[in-house]
This record gives sequence, structure tokens and C-alpha cells, in this order.
Amino acid sequence: MRIPEERLERYRGLKREFSEEDHINLQPIQRGGVLSEEAMRAILEFGDGYSVCDWCPPKSARLDAIETPPVSQFYTDLAEFLGMDIARVVTRCREAKFIAFRMLGTPGDYVVVDGLAHYSSYIAAELAGLRVKEVPVGGSPEFRVDLDAYASKIDEVKRETGRLPAAVLLTHVDYQYGNVNDARTVGKIADEYGVPFVLNCAYSAGVMPVDGKELGADVITGSGHKSWAASAPTGILALNKSLEEKVLRRASVQGDLTKRAFAAKELALLGCTVMGAPLITLMASFPEVVRRVERWSEEVEKTRHLVRELERIEGIRQLGVKPKSHTLTHVETEPFFEVSQRHKRKGYFLYDELRSRKIVGIQPGLTKHFKFNTYGLTWEQIRYVADSFIEIAEKYGLNVH
Amino acid sequence: MRIPEERLERYRGLKREFSEEDHINLQPIQRGGVLSEEAMRAILEFGDGYSVCDWCPPKSARLDAIETPPVSQFYTDLAEFLGMDIARVVTRCREAKFIAFRMLGTPGDYVVVDGLAHYSSYIAAELAGLRVKEVPVGGSPEFRVDLDAYASKIDEVKRETGRLPAAVLLTHVDYQYGNVNDARTVGKIADEYGVPFVLNCAYSAGVMPVDGKELGADVITGSGHKSWAASAPTGILALNKSLEEKVLRRASVQGDLTKRAFAAKELALLGCTVMGAPLITLMASFPEVVRRVERWSEEVEKTRHLVRELERIEGIRQLGVKPKSHTLTHVETEPFFEVSQRHKRKGYFLYDELRSRKIVGIQPGLTKHFKFNTYGLTWEQIRYVADSFIEIAEKYGLNVH
Repeated sequence: MRIPEERLERYRGLKREFSEEDHINLQPIQRGGVLSEEAMRAILEFGDGYSVCDWCPPKSARLDAIETPPVSQFYTDLAEFLGMDIARVVTRCREAKFIAFRMLGTPGDYVVVDGLAHYSSYIAAELAGLRVKEVPVGGSPEFRVDLDAYASKIDEVKRETGRLPAAVLLTHVDYQYGNVNDARTVGKIADEYGVPFVLNCAYSAGVMPVDGKELGADVITGSGHKSWAASAPTGILALNKSLEEKVLRRASVQGDLTKRAFAAKELALLGCTVMGAPLITLMASFPEVVRRVERWSEEVEKTRHLVRELERIEGIRQLGVKPKSHTLTHVETEPFFEVSQRHKRKGYFLYDELRSRKIVGIQPGLTKHFKFNTYGLTWEQIRYVADSFIEIAEKYGLNVH
Repeated sequence: MRIPEERLERYRGLKREFSEEDHINLQPIQRGGVLSEEAMRAILEFGDGYSVCDWCPPKSARLDAIETPPVSQFYTDLAEFLGMDIARVVTRCREAKFIAFRMLGTPGDYVVVDGLAHYSSYIAAELAGLRVKEVPVGGSPEFRVDLDAYASKIDEVKRETGRLPAAVLLTHVDYQYGNVNDARTVGKIADEYGVPFVLNCAYSAGVMPVDGKELGADVITGSGHKSWAASAPTGILALNKSLEEKVLRRASVQGDLTKRAFAAKELALLGCTVMGAPLITLMASFPEVVRRVERWSEEVEKTRHLVRELERIEGIRQLGVKPKSHTLTHVETEPFFEVSQRHKRKGYFLYDELRSRKIVGIQPGLTKHFKFNTYGLTWEQIRYVADSFIEIAEKYGLNVH
């Protein structure tokens, strides 16, 4: 059907309302996905549809076999960087989880997940036909996952079904409080029971050091657009050799008339996965990512500084484990909520105040509590953000110590 | 693990060996995915990870609800453009097929597919736990799918299993010969039997007019990077309202301890799908795509011209239905094979000859037969390609009529 010209007009000159150049963006899920300069250049070069496939080797016709650009080499380096044996780039972290669940489980099986797992972990299990059993999370303000409870939950599944769970999943760093879990605890439990351990590193791998071997992970899932300075959508699926046959099982379907078969294709990946801009930005940013994870302690230091400054405002407190060991932060900001009650813009006053100072990324309308992420900001920007919050607090007569 | 600097060096300055500006690219799967100028600009603006999500509405937190940039509006326009009720952008055409099969079928069910279906159609069925029954394809040189046989294949499934197939799939335009199938024939059969009709439009929608209503399609799947001037990976899933509840069923999983549920999330999409460069290029190119499908007959005319010119070389013949009604073309080129037998570069001589004339995209090494696609080339480029092939033929003493 012909779409009228006036409706097509809205797709012309698509622009973001603010850019990384002229604003400080504290958006909790965006900081780790800001492109590197190399990625910016690469995205222009490989923006066209199948451009990554110029030199697809005709025999295998598989993305992971392409050497120009160095996709095949990248998969090797990526696995090594994560301390794993094999890596694949898939379309999303959630797809990586689905692939692991689908190939490790049998419909009806359980997966044991932490109670702070992202919604996509639950849905990935459901799409794979699996059920979910949660590991409990402690109360406010720390919201610690009870890591030792993975053992009792595995026992519970065994009692209930007579079978072990298909996998256990731990969210390395949760999306709510940015708590960093000690994955080794779960790695050991999973190993003792002989249950595959899926470590969801969406918020960790790519910004902080992650060594799958050391953590005892059998599968690592990651998100390129969340934490690897890559365009969306990109997921990472990294495996230990022992799971390769199961998780990367080849297709066995065959045409009944033509007898065509596709034994080179990895079933759960549906063959080739991410061929364009997201893959090439992931590759182009990789050298910077390898270097930046070594600066992680400094990134955390900046967050701690901002938290200390914010907590000078009476009534504001950081949620989650203290001190922060990740840049994703959740704060309770009751005093700002009180201001909002008497402000004509209600909850939007805080957004307005920040925006007028060229600070964005705090969810508009929220004042009782909100999340932010400082990853990759300079010390100067951090100090400016801290000063801005203090200034706003003082403007509205809050107590600042 | 630290990757040595010298290995990281290979990810710097990633470049294609040739560009659309200085070469004529005949690559069979690349022509429809060359970015529009608007898309090039948009990809720079929205290259960063989650940049499309700047204005994600907190309540629904769904990609299809975002209005800035106009994602929500785009989904509506996209559905209308395809003559369907609902559209979603997913990560790949194959994922769209998987979603349809997974949600329409019960493990063990059959899907009936044409014998020229792409490998990803078979694998999508396998991953969904379904079996495949093929509709026969006629012999050389036309390789016509026997569309009427869909009826007998549905009967066969019913006899064998006592159930109807979960779906029938027709590849609107096949990847081998670029034959355009009359989807209405299959639409009618599917309708009579009450079996959902999935029309795979990877090579049609986005380059030629496709009206799902007119063709009787219940589901249309498409590929943004193949045919919509978009970056990879992008798939399109368009549905009739009657299948919405089944195919876009919401997640029902619930945490046993936390009682968290995710009833807003579309299960088989795993929630949000394509948030970045691929989606924004699809949107930015949409006005151009809407216009370009109306120029389809001229695109086909250019292909026919090139085929006529190529067939002046004695022994060369176009495979598939004649005259061409699609720009994807397969030719038998036995005379070039004979040249290759006596050439020191063997099969690579043709690639070399074309490359020296700045023509690329014919698979290096192939001379017996090969595929090409002329979509979007100018008449001048078409004539240049034709002249080049004739020149090469004459250089090696082939008969040219």
C-alpha cells in the first residue's frame, strides 16, 4: 500500500534530542554502549546490509568463518578475553540465554535463577519451555542475592522432579542495584551438582574484567550494546568446550523430497546471526574494550565519589551493597520527592533542573528514587554532576551537610 | 584475559575492499540492502547502543511504544505498506519464521514448504520442534515450484498425522533462480484448508510491491538488510489480526518467590528486539523504499536487458522462468568454464577480468554458473556490465551473436 507523503515526512532527518557531545548522559543502560571513535568510522564503512559478507567463504558460508573483516579471528579473541573456549556473537544477550536454555534443557525442566534476574532471563526460559525457580534476595537496603541458596534450590528441583535443573543462571551484576555478585560461589555449587552454570554478564563483561574460568562459568552471556561500545542489537554467547556439542548442535532437518540438509549450520543460532553494523562496531571497539576493563577500579572510584556527594543531601541514600563496586547505581531520593509535591512541574522539576544544566538520562518524572550510571564519564563531568545535584538541593532548601 | 596489542591491531581501521561508490557490485544478496543517504545520516546519529531508547515510555517499556524516534508510528506504517494488520521488527527474517512456527505449531507438527525454500526456513522449523514436508520443484531450466501441490501436501500431512500442518510456507521469490511465485495460488489453498500461510518475502518486500491482503498471506516475513536499504540484522514480521493472540502471545512466566510477572512482553520476541542501527536505518530508508517499489518494473526491465546481452554469448543461458520478473538472476555460463580450463588463474580469471573493470560481487572462482543481482543499478551501469561481459567473451574468443 502507498503511504501518504506527509506520513513519510516523519522519517526524514531522524535525530536524537541530545548528543553525547553536548550533554552528560547518566542513562543507566546507555553508558557502556557509547561507540568508540573506531566504531563510528567502522559503522559508516559497513552500514550497508550484508557488507560484512563480501568475503564469505563459499564452502562453509558461515559468518564465523569470514576472515575479511576478521570475524573468525574476533570470535577467537573474544573467547580468550572472557576466559572461555568458544564465542559467538548473537543478536541479543536474551537470545544467548534462550539458546543456552533451549539446548541444555528439555521442556518442563527447571532453571534456577537469582530473584534479581532481568525479565529477559525469565522469558528466555519460558520460550525454551522451561520453568523457573528463584533464589531469594535479601531486603532493603542491600538487596543481596543469597548465593549459597543455589544449593538448596537445586536440591528442591531434584526432590520435586527427580531431575537436576537444566541450568542455573546468575546475573553477575543486577539491573536494579548494580550489585556485583561473587560468581565463584555459584560456580562451585553448580560444579558440585554437575549443573551447567550460565553467568549473565550483560552489565559486567565489556566494562569490568570477567574471567569465566576463574568464576567457574560454563556459559557467559553478554550484551554488546549495553557494555561493549557497540550498536544494538548484539549479544555474546561464550561457552566452555564441554558444552559445545550440546549448545552449538548442528541442524539435522532434511528435506523429504530434495534431501537437502544443512549440517554446517548451528541450529539454535539459526545459522548466521549478526552480520552488520552491530558486529562491526563490536569488533572495532574491541581494542578499546580490552584496555578499558583494566581501568575499572577508577570507574568505580568515580561512582563512589558521586554517591558520597549525593549523600551529603540529607535523606538521600544509595541502595544496594556499600560501597559501590559497579557504576550502575540506585539512589533513594525522598527529599526530591518532597520538593516535587509542592512544585508546579511535579516530578518533572528534577528532570527540568538537570536538563537546564545539560545533564540527561535520569528518567523524567522520577524523584522518589532513580538509577544512574557514570561509566566512562570524566572526573570533571562527575564533579559537575555532583555540584549540580547539590546546587538543585540548595535551591529548594534541602539540608546539605 | 589480556589480548596482546599486536592481535588487537587487526581491528583498527576496518575497511571494505571496495565501496559502492567506486565499484559496481552485483552481489546477489547485497543490492537491496545498500543504505539510502537518509539511512547513512541516521546510523551516525543512532549508532550508540541504546540510543533509540532515549524516550522509552517507562510504563510499557516496550520498543514498539517509543514515539521519539517514531518507532510506534513506523510499525503502523510498515504493516499498512505490506497490506497487513500488525508489524514488528525482529532481528532477522529467519527469526520471524521461527517465531511464526514456534507460536503456531506444537512440537511434532509439520510445516509444508516449497523445495526452493532457504535453509533458514528449514532450520527455523527444526528449532521450533516441527517437521518439514516439501512441495516439489520442476526441473531445469525453469525450476518452477508446483504451487498446486500445496493442497496434496496438506492432505498428506493430514493422512499421516491426523492433524493439519502448523503452517504452510512459500518463498515468494527464491534465492536460487529469483523466480517470483504467484502467492495467491497458495493463499487460496491455505485458506480453504484453514492453515496459516507464511509468505517469506525476504527477496520481494522492500524492492517490489507486496500486498499481503491481495496475496492471502497470514504472516509475511521480510529482511531489512536484504531488501529494505537497512543495516543487518533486521527482520520483519507482519501479521493478520487473527493471528495476533497466538503469535504475539504475552509472557506468562512468573517468579515463584518474587511473583514478578512480565505480562506486557511478547514471549517469542523475547521482549524488545532491534533497538539500534538496523532499526533506525530501516526507518530512515522507509520513504525511499515506499517510492522505489513503484519503480520495480523498470528494475526488471534492466535485468532483462542484461540477460539478453549475456545470452548473445553463445552457450550462456539464464536459468529460471523466462523472461525474468525479478532482478536476482542465475545464469549458466559453460563457455566461461571452458576458458577457465585453459587459463592459468583457472576459475578466477573471470573474477580478475571483472575486477579489473571495477565490477565485483560474482563469487570468485565460479565460471560454470553464477548468480547476480542488478537491483538499483543505473541503465548506464547495466550497459557497462553488459559491455564488459561481451568484451571478456570476445577477448577469449567466444562466439558472440
